[in-house]
Amino acid sequence: MTNYCIIMAGGVGSRFWPYSTTQCPKQFLDFFGTGRSLLQTTFDRIAHIMPVENIYIVSNKNYREQILEQLPELKPEQILLEPMRRNTAPCIAYAVYKIKKKTSDANILVVPSDHLITNELAFLDVVKEGLEFVDTNDAILTLGIKPTRPETGYGYIQLGKGNGATRKVKTFTEKPNLELAKVFVDSGEFYWNAGIFLWSLNTIVNAFNTYLPDIANKFEAFTPYYDTPEEAQLLNEVYATCQNISIDYGVMEKAQNVYVRMSEFGWSDLGTWSSYYELANKDQDGNAIVSGQTLLYNNKNNIIVLPKGHLAVIDGLEGYLITQRGNTLLICPKDAESKMRQYAKDVAELPNSKDFQ
Amino acid sequence: MTNYCIIMAGGVGSRFWPYSTTQCPKQFLDFFGTGRSLLQTTFDRIAHIMPVENIYIVSNKNYREQILEQLPELKPEQILLEPMRRNTAPCIAYAVYKIKKKTSDANILVVPSDHLITNELAFLDVVKEGLEFVDTNDAILTLGIKPTRPETGYGYIQLGKGNGATRKVKTFTEKPNLELAKVFVDSGEFYWNAGIFLWSLNTIVNAFNTYLPDIANKFEAFTPYYDTPEEAQLLNEVYATCQNISIDYGVMEKAQNVYVRMSEFGWSDLGTWSSYYELANKDQDGNAIVSGQTLLYNNKNNIIVLPKGHLAVIDGLEGYLITQRGNTLLICPKDAESKMRQYAKDVAELPNSKDFQ
Repeated sequence: MTNYCIIMAGGVGSRFWPYSTTQCPKQFLDFFGTGRSLLQTTFDRIAHIMPVENIYIVSNKNYREQILEQLPELKPEQILLEPMRRNTAPCIAYAVYKIKKKTSDANILVVPSDHLITNELAFLDVVKEGLEFVDTNDAILTLGIKPTRPETGYGYIQLGKGNGATRKVKTFTEKPNLELAKVFVDSGEFYWNAGIFLWSLNTIVNAFNTYLPDIANKFEAFTPYYDTPEEAQLLNEVYATCQNISIDYGVMEKAQNVYVRMSEFGWSDLGTWSSYYELANKDQDGNAIVSGQTLLYNNKNNIIVLPKGHLAVIDGLEGYLITQRGNTLLICPKDAESKMRQYAKDVAELPNSKDFQ
Repeated sequence: MTNYCIIMAGGVGSRFWPYSTTQCPKQFLDFFGTGRSLLQTTFDRIAHIMPVENIYIVSNKNYREQILEQLPELKPEQILLEPMRRNTAPCIAYAVYKIKKKTSDANILVVPSDHLITNELAFLDVVKEGLEFVDTNDAILTLGIKPTRPETGYGYIQLGKGNGATRKVKTFTEKPNLELAKVFVDSGEFYWNAGIFLWSLNTIVNAFNTYLPDIANKFEAFTPYYDTPEEAQLLNEVYATCQNISIDYGVMEKAQNVYVRMSEFGWSDLGTWSSYYELANKDQDGNAIVSGQTLLYNNKNNIIVLPKGHLAVIDGLEGYLITQRGNTLLICPKDAESKMRQYAKDVAELPNSKDFQ
């Protein structure tokens, strides 16, 4: 059984602006003060169960330097650089057909690079079992996370037939409203979609051929150019005409052989500062200090993110996010989720926006 | 009538930390975004009524570079550098005896370098009149500011006998409590002590001889060394053994010929952020932006001080001071006057305090 992993590291999220920026998105940041970024942590985790040379990173060409710097153990051919954003289906196809050039028989794990997993042993056990499952079944397997709250920011997977921990998928539902999310959670029949997929090479190639034939044909035809001097240039042309579509919409919601493994391993997509705050280490007053040094007086339940070597003296704030990067400071209520993109957008519209993060 | 001015620029205040620091105290900062520091503004003001070469700056030797940079029109002999802090009496004596070496007949204006005066014409009129007064009277003259509120942070001067705008001084009272300050203001008999003095050379030399003979003798004896290569070295010895005493306590409160000129010229000692806030330009929501660029959402009555070229995006703060300098950020209620020194002190006690402002 030969296992590969595709780590998707192309995110450019602005929800953590200005801590994360287009120049240095979330996956490259050390959110938990461990000394390792989310990408590095993801890589370290996977390296426990498969050879390092079988782990591929797919990201945007702009992040080449960061990836090389953060994961110097990677060979150049393990870093797949997309010339533009085309959502997850082309991203996965690019890596899948590269693996297909190397081998005719493999099992593949696909994981996002910027999620948090607190129980790594449980995760690895589930993944190992999942790789065996797709090795012996023509199955597309997705990991479903047992929901702990009626989260409206996640997609949900409805369990279908079966008895064990792995079931057929009945439906996928994108971000429900709160009422519906409550019904989902109470029913016990719905699991969070963590965006983690497992399949054999044959299964996913068949799925691309069936449900996304244009993408399949493009990357099949591109096969001779992997790891050649022409790769970057020709890939440009492939992507320019490539459909922009997610693997969820393009494959998962259409294929008949989709399964979900019910899982619990302390998962969060770290999609918002609030979701980060839930998981962060906090002082006795509930302040989560991500980075930098602080002197705190009369503060409660804040998140503080400072540049390395910086100090903040803060008195009398409750429930705020205080985050600085370079010459840009943001202070706002930490639950102002919906406004955080707006701030970044408003800054981008300043006449001198280029001066800032 | 030959007029001289002594600008006292030795302050090291920590009440505006970290905007002002020991390395760059208040007098060197541009609080009002005019492009000129408080010291430069003070100098510009005085230069309207006397020759530039008659304006002396007394400061600490650590600030030589800043003074030369901010006032390049000064000749080296106009910058008097104290080797250590000995309060205002030695500071003034140092400059007075230097003037005495040059001339036997002069009138001298002494002003702090870090106060705000909003009605400069009124100030200059009062000063011109005052210089004439001390030219023709053996009088120590201090400017008293008509109080506009029961300020407990200022000293008060009680008016004595007389009819015009210039009266004998009856008493000096240092920072009263609020109750007493209210009585003072209501009485109409008490004026704020602005620390601005006028006297003739003879009058102040006589006063030093009478009330501070040790200091008088030291600087009299030092006279041959002014503007010589030995000045700095020998001054070191003078200061090391010099009494640490204010001109108020050493001379003003003891002399019999002390007068006060009742004045109104929009004066503030800018002793606290609150006193700054009263005078600052504010946006329609009451936010005073001292420096830097801002994007503000739902904010009221804040003071924001950022490094040049920095941006702050702030949402939902009311009544705060947000100030950053270098790698140090302070966020606190803007009326937390008494705590601001504490913050600076606590930072100074950090094991790695040298890393910060």
